[in-house]
Amino acid sequence: MTETHNAEDRISFLCGLRAVRSFRPEPVPQDVVDDVLEVARWSGSAGNKQPWEILVIRDPETLGALADVEGYAGHLAGAPLGIVLAMAGERPEQAAYDEGRLTERIMLAAWAHGVGSGIGWIVGSGREAARELLKIPSGRMVRTAISLGYPDETARRPRSRAGQAHKPLSEIVHEEQYDRNPG
Amino acid sequence: MTETHNAEDRISFLCGLRAVRSFRPEPVPQDVVDDVLEVARWSGSAGNKQPWEILVIRDPETLGALADVEGYAGHLAGAPLGIVLAMAGERPEQAAYDEGRLTERIMLAAWAHGVGSGIGWIVGSGREAARELLKIPSGRMVRTAISLGYPDETARRPRSRAGQAHKPLSEIVHEEQYDRNPG
Repeated sequence: MTETHNAEDRISFLCGLRAVRSFRPEPVPQDVVDDVLEVARWSGSAGNKQPWEILVIRDPETLGALADVEGYAGHLAGAPLGIVLAMAGERPEQAAYDEGRLTERIMLAAWAHGVGSGIGWIVGSGREAARELLKIPSGRMVRTAISLGYPDETARRPRSRAGQAHKPLSEIVHEEQYDRNPG
Repeated sequence: MTETHNAEDRISFLCGLRAVRSFRPEPVPQDVVDDVLEVARWSGSAGNKQPWEILVIRDPETLGALADVEGYAGHLAGAPLGIVLAMAGERPEQAAYDEGRLTERIMLAAWAHGVGSGIGWIVGSGREAARELLKIPSGRMVRTAISLGYPDETARRPRSRAGQAHKPLSEIVHEEQYDRNPG
C-alpha cells in the first residue's frame, strides 16, 4: 500500500466518525478496549500533564445508574461498555480542552475497529452523583461518559436531517483574515 | 488490505501523533490543507452546533505577529502555515471541549499526510490582540493557534525526556470503580 493510499484511508476514516447512541448487545472485545486505552494514553495535553484518569465500566447496573444522573448520558443504559473520564480540575478551561482532545481519540480508536461511540455529557448535580457512584475522590471533574458498542444499524436515525447537517466550508473558513473568504 | 490491517494501521497512526514545533520551510500543499479543512468540517460538537470558524494563515508577517501575542504560540513564527480557531463563546466550558475535539482532528488530518503540528495556546491580553490582528469580530474566543508544516527532523528534541513520558496504563485506568485497577 502506497503512502498516498494510506493518507486517503486515514482521511476518510477521520471524516467517517459519527456519534452512535444505539448499540447491539454483544460486548466490545478486550483487544479493542486495549487499543482504545493505548491511544488514550498517548493523547497530548497542555504541558504534557495528562490530567486524566479513565474508568472502564461494563456492569449494566452501573451503566444504568450513570444513565440516570443529571445530564445527557441516557444512552449509556443500552451500551455494553462505558468509559468515564475523571479530570484533574485545577484549570477548568484547559482541562475541558484536553478532555475534548482525549474524547476524540477514544472515539476514533474505537471506530478504527468498527465500534461506535457517543458522548454522554453530565451536568449539574449529575457530576457529584457520578463521582460518588464510581467512588472517584473529590477534586476530580466528572462530566464525560462515553458509551461504546457495535452500532445497531436497525436503530440508526436518518443522517441527513437538516439539524444534523454539517456547515459548508464557505461558512466556516477564512483566508489570512476574518474578512476574507476562500476563492 | 484486510480489515484487521486497516485497524492496525489506524491505531498506530493515532498512537503516533506527536507535537511538532520546528518545521522545514516548504509550504503545506493545498490538497493537504483541503483535507484538513474537510476533516475539521466533520467534527462532532455538542448539539451539533459546530461553534467554530477557522482561519488559514500563510502570511509570515501575520504568523510572526501572532507568535508575539501573550501566550505560548512562539513556534508559529517558524511555521509555513497557521490555523487559528475562532469559537462562539456562549458556553465557555462546552466551547473549550469542542475546541479540543476539533484541534485533535486537525492535527490528525495533517499527520495523515506527514505534516506535523503544534498547539499555540493564547492567553490573557493575547486573545484580544489576536482577535484584532485577524479582524475577528468581538464575541468570538480566540485561544488556539496551530502551527503546521513538515517536521524539521534535525531540530527534533529527544523524545524520552522524563517530563515528556506518558504515564503507564496502571496509573490512569480503573475497572468498574475508581478503587479497582486492572488485574
